[in-house]
Amino acid sequence: MKIINEDLASLKKLVQTKTQQLTDLKVEATVRNIITDVIQNGDAALRKYEENFDGVTLDQIKLSPSVIDEAYAKLDPKVKDALLLAKRNITSFHEKERATGFMDAEQPGVLRGQKLLPLKRVGLYVPGGTAAYPSTLLMSALPAKIAGVNEVVMVTPPQKDGINPAVLAAAKIAGVDAIYQVGGAQAIAALAYGTESVPAVDKIIGPGNVFVATAKKQVFGQVAIDMVAGPSEIGIIADDSADPRQLAADLLSQAEHDRRARPILITDSLKLAQAVSANVTSQLEVLPRTAIATAAVNEKGFIAVVQRVEDMFELMNTVAPEHLEIQLREPTQYLNLIRNAGSVFLGKYASEPLGDYVAGPNHILPTSGTARFSSPLGVYDFVKRTSFIQYTKAALAKEAPAITTLARVEGLEGHARAIESRFDTYYD
Amino acid sequence: MKIINEDLASLKKLVQTKTQQLTDLKVEATVRNIITDVIQNGDAALRKYEENFDGVTLDQIKLSPSVIDEAYAKLDPKVKDALLLAKRNITSFHEKERATGFMDAEQPGVLRGQKLLPLKRVGLYVPGGTAAYPSTLLMSALPAKIAGVNEVVMVTPPQKDGINPAVLAAAKIAGVDAIYQVGGAQAIAALAYGTESVPAVDKIIGPGNVFVATAKKQVFGQVAIDMVAGPSEIGIIADDSADPRQLAADLLSQAEHDRRARPILITDSLKLAQAVSANVTSQLEVLPRTAIATAAVNEKGFIAVVQRVEDMFELMNTVAPEHLEIQLREPTQYLNLIRNAGSVFLGKYASEPLGDYVAGPNHILPTSGTARFSSPLGVYDFVKRTSFIQYTKAALAKEAPAITTLARVEGLEGHARAIESRFDTYYD
Repeated sequence: MKIINEDLASLKKLVQTKTQQLTDLKVEATVRNIITDVIQNGDAALRKYEENFDGVTLDQIKLSPSVIDEAYAKLDPKVKDALLLAKRNITSFHEKERATGFMDAEQPGVLRGQKLLPLKRVGLYVPGGTAAYPSTLLMSALPAKIAGVNEVVMVTPPQKDGINPAVLAAAKIAGVDAIYQVGGAQAIAALAYGTESVPAVDKIIGPGNVFVATAKKQVFGQVAIDMVAGPSEIGIIADDSADPRQLAADLLSQAEHDRRARPILITDSLKLAQAVSANVTSQLEVLPRTAIATAAVNEKGFIAVVQRVEDMFELMNTVAPEHLEIQLREPTQYLNLIRNAGSVFLGKYASEPLGDYVAGPNHILPTSGTARFSSPLGVYDFVKRTSFIQYTKAALAKEAPAITTLARVEGLEGHARAIESRFDTYYD
Repeated sequence: MKIINEDLASLKKLVQTKTQQLTDLKVEATVRNIITDVIQNGDAALRKYEENFDGVTLDQIKLSPSVIDEAYAKLDPKVKDALLLAKRNITSFHEKERATGFMDAEQPGVLRGQKLLPLKRVGLYVPGGTAAYPSTLLMSALPAKIAGVNEVVMVTPPQKDGINPAVLAAAKIAGVDAIYQVGGAQAIAALAYGTESVPAVDKIIGPGNVFVATAKKQVFGQVAIDMVAGPSEIGIIADDSADPRQLAADLLSQAEHDRRARPILITDSLKLAQAVSANVTSQLEVLPRTAIATAAVNEKGFIAVVQRVEDMFELMNTVAPEHLEIQLREPTQYLNLIRNAGSVFLGKYASEPLGDYVAGPNHILPTSGTARFSSPLGVYDFVKRTSFIQYTKAALAKEAPAITTLARVEGLEGHARAIESRFDTYYD
């Protein structure tokens, strides 16, 4: 793993990315046609695309509950226990994310407030094949349920030999209300506009290929969508008290996800940097997903050596990593210096995979530096707010001159007259 | 104004919209080139586009503080007082939107928590000409400031005869830190990527023309953006206790915004419906912006007459209006029936323009039915969350088997090994 030993300014420039969203016009056009087709032809369009794209002739689009129950009944008890532990911890953490509204009655005759309401129906997109993770289903469905979403439905591409039973069992554990066997852009269209079988939802969550991502962008506005998920990142800040074998293992746990994953170590110890680099090399040799992890380490990974602890944090804040491990002698000493990170792991025993599975905080996190402005998926993503005001006549009278003044400055006479109609100073 | 008297199911169908985001490929391509140019050429590109598009040769891109101070000094004291009243009420309301994180230490050896941090820098896009509203500047800048955003900057197209002084004065009152004279897609590119003059921001807020909207979509991911603003809506639920003259004035206050604005009244009184319709006609005759308002009333507006109070709310929840007035004898009786609305105005004296200017709740609201899943602009839009975990060795040991089980079910051996590296059961 390459070790970079430059001044802070050069390092900051190195990690700053200027990426522009490029549109693939051919994909855009294909997706647009699929969406129009699903709006017009509903289930018939879904069946056609699943036949053409996935080679599956669908008997029924909605998966029978008995198939889900069967998968759950046959689940390895060890896996079931692990999922139930994860569910308990995810639930107890996310329950603390619940927000409430407020009421304000501090001025005579004025009542103001804000109320929170859950979204009514949410759709989870779960990719097919090896990218369908049972753990991710818990991480997306449980916060929705805790928010009070009435109906959480899931779509996933049909598979010739059936949908992954561990995913089905996880869906049952997470309380998913219905599963529809449809994938790709057509699944996104169905969730956005509804068909005979698939109900229209208010928000669509979950990662997918370029067709899914493009479809989500195109239906945005008709429904809400979650953020664009990029490749995974791990950033580690470590001093010479850290164990290089453990750091290497943690870096590789992210590197094995994706060739484009970014494993990053920032340290003030050149000796540690060299030891971690050597450990990465030796561990890569015996890692099953070594091709993926090696590509990520070589093309995206680096170890930066800086002089001061403050510099480690400043550089890492520029990276704004999805996962941030603090492997310092005193991991809580510099908590105040963390500005941008999705999820933070403090100390030797908070290894990143702990957060992927059982600790409880969400593992759907802002990637590619978006921790600068976005948050882990949470209960707050499944609620919306409504403001309320009630004024007495006296209270309105007091503020009416200010309202009509501003309305007329903005050239909106109708606004002024609406207020004046309450006071018989009306123009007719 | 047309009166519709059909059964609830037909009415619900009537108000449900299935819209697809259509991409204008020519605009997409133009905007993409502008963004690339600004990334590569910075200020020089900005100057070129302002020369070409707005016919203005820019001396300096950053507006001199003395110009802003001068506008503030010359502001009509009545307008200044009105803006200061608005600021006080907006501030006291939005301060209640501030959220805090939490700490959780309910299991031995396990510390979990969540911390909220403000975005560092935010950019406000303010359109030129008549669409630049001083009130909107307060509504966007103040929540950012209350959230703790370090720097709130504004961009606005340069005007040959200078930027609207009321807008400049409002910017000063709202605490905007800097104003840059640049508009269109090039302004969005500058905010997203930074130039010599314009600093890169973390989030871009504010409405604009199709070039601005397309540019925001293209830079999304590099920075956060706010929602897509559609035409304004007002929905009124009223019984025969309401004053038809006041209802007509309130409907027109939204209709005058935009030819595509939707003024909607739902009532159980045919007599009220007819009286409001007549009042709309007579008030339109003497309204300055009558052309715009008449188009909105005729093309987008309607009055629906239904039988039951519950039906009024069910139909209005399908509309999911930006603004909702409850003009019932007992406006709080049915608060529990409101599911989808941006801002709710209760009773005779909560006329909608009260909320536009001085009441305090935000007037940047979800439009076009998006109140089904989105919220008024608020302090929560300018913060982000970071999760934390810290485990002792004993706590990790307890959950390690569950982690390694799930990691291996998902085919992620590197994840399992990262955990095992803490317990000397490592593979090397």
